Amino acid sequence: MPIPAEFARAHRAQFEAELSDLLRIPSISTLAANRGDVQAAARWLTDYLGKIGLASELISTQGHPLVYAEWTGAPGRPTVLCYGHYDVQPVDPLDLWTTPPFEPVVRAGSLFARGAADDKGQFFTIIAAIRAYLETKTPLPANIKLLIEGEEESGGASIEAFVRDHGDRLRADAALVLDAGMFAPGIPAVTLGLRGIVMTEVEVTGAARDLHSGQYGGVAPNPFVALAEIIAGLKDPHGRILIPQFYDRVVPPHPDEEAGWDRLPFDEEAFLHAEIGAPALVGESGYTALERMWARPTLDVHGMPGGFTGEGSKTVIPAKGSAKISMRLVPEQDPAEVFRHFEAHVRHLTPRGTRVHIRRYHGAAPVVMSPALPAIAAAKRALTDAFGRDAVFVRTGGSIPIVADFIGRLGLPTVITGWTLPDANLHSPDEKLDLEHFHTGIQAVIRFFEEMGAA
Amino acid sequence: MPIPAEFARAHRAQFEAELSDLLRIPSISTLAANRGDVQAAARWLTDYLGKIGLASELISTQGHPLVYAEWTGAPGRPTVLCYGHYDVQPVDPLDLWTTPPFEPVVRAGSLFARGAADDKGQFFTIIAAIRAYLETKTPLPANIKLLIEGEEESGGASIEAFVRDHGDRLRADAALVLDAGMFAPGIPAVTLGLRGIVMTEVEVTGAARDLHSGQYGGVAPNPFVALAEIIAGLKDPHGRILIPQFYDRVVPPHPDEEAGWDRLPFDEEAFLHAEIGAPALVGESGYTALERMWARPTLDVHGMPGGFTGEGSKTVIPAKGSAKISMRLVPEQDPAEVFRHFEAHVRHLTPRGTRVHIRRYHGAAPVVMSPALPAIAAAKRALTDAFGRDAVFVRTGGSIPIVADFIGRLGLPTVITGWTLPDANLHSPDEKLDLEHFHTGIQAVIRFFEEMGAA
Repeated sequence: MPIPAEFARAHRAQFEAELSDLLRIPSISTLAANRGDVQAAARWLTDYLGKIGLASELISTQGHPLVYAEWTGAPGRPTVLCYGHYDVQPVDPLDLWTTPPFEPVVRAGSLFARGAADDKGQFFTIIAAIRAYLETKTPLPANIKLLIEGEEESGGASIEAFVRDHGDRLRADAALVLDAGMFAPGIPAVTLGLRGIVMTEVEVTGAARDLHSGQYGGVAPNPFVALAEIIAGLKDPHGRILIPQFYDRVVPPHPDEEAGWDRLPFDEEAFLHAEIGAPALVGESGYTALERMWARPTLDVHGMPGGFTGEGSKTVIPAKGSAKISMRLVPEQDPAEVFRHFEAHVRHLTPRGTRVHIRRYHGAAPVVMSPALPAIAAAKRALTDAFGRDAVFVRTGGSIPIVADFIGRLGLPTVITGWTLPDANLHSPDEKLDLEHFHTGIQAVIRFFEEMGAA
Repeated sequence: MPIPAEFARAHRAQFEAELSDLLRIPSISTLAANRGDVQAAARWLTDYLGKIGLASELISTQGHPLVYAEWTGAPGRPTVLCYGHYDVQPVDPLDLWTTPPFEPVVRAGSLFARGAADDKGQFFTIIAAIRAYLETKTPLPANIKLLIEGEEESGGASIEAFVRDHGDRLRADAALVLDAGMFAPGIPAVTLGLRGIVMTEVEVTGAARDLHSGQYGGVAPNPFVALAEIIAGLKDPHGRILIPQFYDRVVPPHPDEEAGWDRLPFDEEAFLHAEIGAPALVGESGYTALERMWARPTLDVHGMPGGFTGEGSKTVIPAKGSAKISMRLVPEQDPAEVFRHFEAHVRHLTPRGTRVHIRRYHGAAPVVMSPALPAIAAAKRALTDAFGRDAVFVRTGGSIPIVADFIGRLGLPTVITGWTLPDANLHSPDEKLDLEHFHTGIQAVIRFFEEMGAA
């Protein structure tokens, strides 16, 4: 076993303790009240990176700071740009957490805390791997650039601007993005594709003020009834999106990739019960569940603010109501173009007597990588070696907005992987990380660096 | 001029000041925090009624107290059961009030305060009329029973139970309900019909927990999309309700009543701009605006709680979402039967992959009175005399739940009228009462007592 790998094995307890220190900082990027905590997490990281011997930097932005570090002691060897994010999701509903979200605790082999899986416990394996080289005075087989952002859960505007403006500084041969997961316990995965996203809010206005539904019901437009008609007109009962031209640019996965999915140990019935808990899976007919999550675009409603939402009843016809609607996109759909088609169709569906105002929030382009890329092949070998089981190629239905920029702007083959399990409760109470996978993940990063260095 | 009428004219300032005292008490019946204020308003009333010489009583209930008083000094003469409510609506949005809702103030001839129009400023004219007789030692021409509730805005369960259990005590020859309004400035109206109401909440559950819309979008049921399909399936784009059997018992108004509506000075365009402020009036085609508000049933959505409703975006597929839905009913629709049809149709519309739970809140039966009833004719004469302009017969689209019990349980011909104007901002900021109409209203009540006594 190479010396860095041995070092990592010998320092399991220490890595767990240090990760726990980072997890104690409630770096929720979407809440103004936690602004100081987000800063504290960034400073914790730059301090830690400095201590282990990396030149590190806290980069101020218009939002939350970026953490940057590099090791460039292998001239002539390839460079890997490593990515993670130190911000976390909000914790509500707090009462559903078994133990407090910012007091990390180990139960049944998993570390429970907000951020354990998304993403502190993931990118920390990169830092641990680098440390294993530095502390054992073993030269790293590749040059490393490390970029950790604090806005992944809140739009990622700062890293997007940084990547746009500092392409030279970030020059590399491949990117390693540790913000995805395993396919199942013990089965490592390289994520070849990410869906993109368009986030919107559709606000419908009827009357100039809230009206009494007794006096005016029958003549006053009802914004929520209008929104229901709009939403029902966006998606048919079989899950097909009704926006004209919406599917025009959708490219189905390569038959080889599809064939790989068919071989995955995936049981829709077990998945339904373990992860969804609804009476049935839904979605477009003619596609498997994996296809619907990975390779088909979707439309979801996240909430409908406005009107009366308290206990009991209030006989009001609200002047306004909104729907927060997002669409997940697949290659080669373009977020800006999809938004234009969405907007036109919503206007077309808006009933007489109402006005509509359509906002666009952040978006991200979909991406897909070829398994033939050398960096992808290197990652597959590294994961297979470390976990002792063939790594599989998957996609994920979520977005990591910056990946589209790594690929599109920086031209980097991007390895998207990670050690979280499907039941890691990302964005939910009792978020957790299996510690065995965490430590094997450190080994996998070490092997990936070796594979990249040997290229 | 009879002595009581002269007394009322001479004491305008005093009545306004006393009403303002009552309006200062924030007796919001739906808010637990205002429980003490509701009690205080009831005590203010019993004290006031006692002071003017009426035997009065504060009747405890399971909810807010009832105020009861009577004057039975005209044996052999008819008895009028007078009704009002001393509770008021909540005041939010507070920032849209020009002056604080519980600091009554006169502007441009109107008294502004929460409750000025609905209903303190209305039933107070009954009390003022009675006082005008008592203080001038003029025998009242009819016996009076006065029942004022504190739950009209919160379901009215206590008065319903009281009427059910104390029919003997409430025996009378007619009821006078001062909780409706004028047709237009200067044009008094007797309201012959009220719509009924069925209030519901439809809660749809999809997954067992909130899910990430990236990971699970495409297979996880979305409760808000399901609710949109349900709502869109309850009402067609032309405003017709699609619940089977919903219209079966609807009885159109008598042609004479309809003909009267056609003669009313009502301009749909002016109404749209003055009262609605939307791009257009909506509703069932083939019916006039007055018919749609007064004689046609409706379905409205008041709000859709659940999911993410904060600023910006959150990529969640909520486990649950609800819609607060009510239907307004017209004679002879039955609330319980309509709810059953509604429930069956909602279940039928609930998409695969979701579960639905349907709650029923309070309801009220629709009512309609014949203009030929002696009490209605007496009211028409009294209003015409007092206002110096022909009183018209109208309906109102709202519900006054107890009226169905006055008619159905107590068998009372019920005169529904009042002095508020269409722009009185009931249930909205800047609620107001025209003081000229208030004082003429006192005169009208005096005349109505005379008409009833002369029967």
